[in-house]
Amino acid sequence: AWGWGLQGGSRLWVLEAPRSLCAHACAQTGAGMFTPVSPGRPKDYALPNASWSRDMLDLYDRFLAMTKEGLWKRIPSYNNVLDHIPGKALRGLPSRKKDTRLFLRSIEAEGVGFEYVMFLNSSEKRVVCLFQPGSYLEGHPGFAHGGSIATIIDSTIGSCAIFVAGRVMTANLSINYMSPVPLGSVVLVDSKVDKVEGRKVFLSCKVQSVDGGTLHAEATGKDRVQVAQGVCKRVGVGLC
Amino acid sequence: AWGWGLQGGSRLWVLEAPRSLCAHACAQTGAGMFTPVSPGRPKDYALPNASWSRDMLDLYDRFLAMTKEGLWKRIPSYNNVLDHIPGKALRGLPSRKKDTRLFLRSIEAEGVGFEYVMFLNSSEKRVVCLFQPGSYLEGHPGFAHGGSIATIIDSTIGSCAIFVAGRVMTANLSINYMSPVPLGSVVLVDSKVDKVEGRKVFLSCKVQSVDGGTLHAEATGKDRVQVAQGVCKRVGVGLC
Repeated sequence: AWGWGLQGGSRLWVLEAPRSLCAHACAQTGAGMFTPVSPGRPKDYALPNASWSRDMLDLYDRFLAMTKEGLWKRIPSYNNVLDHIPGKALRGLPSRKKDTRLFLRSIEAEGVGFEYVMFLNSSEKRVVCLFQPGSYLEGHPGFAHGGSIATIIDSTIGSCAIFVAGRVMTANLSINYMSPVPLGSVVLVDSKVDKVEGRKVFLSCKVQSVDGGTLHAEATGKDRVQVAQGVCKRVGVGLC
Repeated sequence: AWGWGLQGGSRLWVLEAPRSLCAHACAQTGAGMFTPVSPGRPKDYALPNASWSRDMLDLYDRFLAMTKEGLWKRIPSYNNVLDHIPGKALRGLPSRKKDTRLFLRSIEAEGVGFEYVMFLNSSEKRVVCLFQPGSYLEGHPGFAHGGSIATIIDSTIGSCAIFVAGRVMTANLSINYMSPVPLGSVVLVDSKVDKVEGRKVFLSCKVQSVDGGTLHAEATGKDRVQVAQGVCKRVGVGLC
């Protein structure tokens, strides 16, 4: 299931992603059942917590049900980027710094930052992110900052590109903002790979309300597949 | 000095911005002199703190010197969006919610989030932001997340548009990422208004290293001037 669309630079991620994806009992936790952190394992933040709204929990349950049919997989999420990277790929990367955090997981308190979980459908080359922006992401009063919307889009399309093409970095991101996203609401960030040309991965993304009635934003992204040379060597493995 | 480029929707901001800009002893604090918070006044985060690097402090001092010539003004920054809005313009907006924070000021600890200060040159229709991304903004190991770069660009061009055209919301943001920004480094985010057509404000922006030798990203933005009707009424006054 992981063999399609392989690009030159994709070796590490495509081969190792399934292990990473399944290392933390993914897709076994239903809404309302909050998973404790196991000793020695990093906390997986892409699981329900007490701050998730009914809309968020309902959507999560729907996607979780789809994972049981095998086409979708939940993507775990940690607050340190190095935890996303399979063991072998860590060679050559800087050693763990305790004072760094993945930007989207930088706010510790539940519910006030980025509450999100991503699901991957590899046969559709698609990643859907359920996103509930918290009250610390404010831009205009009562609404999520345009930068926070850009951030969740960049991460979602980045995840999508990684699972299709391996190591990637965002080369271009273009967003049309149609309607502001209220803080505390839930939106679906739906991204897919449109085409792969050489080292370029072209993606598109829509940010919609749960009922599908409001298109909050749409975006296109171009990711560059990385190889272990030059800047790419310094930057290391792409991750969400 | 604030009378140029007035658009229909700009009344509140253009008339009241100078008061807001100068309400907090702006441009009087030199590098190394950290300003205590006055009782009853919100803390201004756009002032040097102990986390600022030598590069950041040097640049700050250079811009501060330019403010004394009168062409540049430092823009204060608070962690609650309502503190950016002049008193009269608050009417009709939701009352203060203590649990909301401006996205860029959501991380309390000094040095790990967005450390930045913006300077406005109104005659050039330009805002320059000095930005030092902290260790909680990580994307690829050791580098600032693309979403954090999008966020500082969106805020900088938004500030630029506000001072030219008044109430605005980002309509489009397109970013080319050239070179990743190392965590802890300092970059200049340099934005200007290219043209105003009706309610549309067109802006461009460059993110460069302090020595000018590295172009990290370039962007174009289109902001929509808001009027007090429909969505705009709900959204309120544009702010950075």
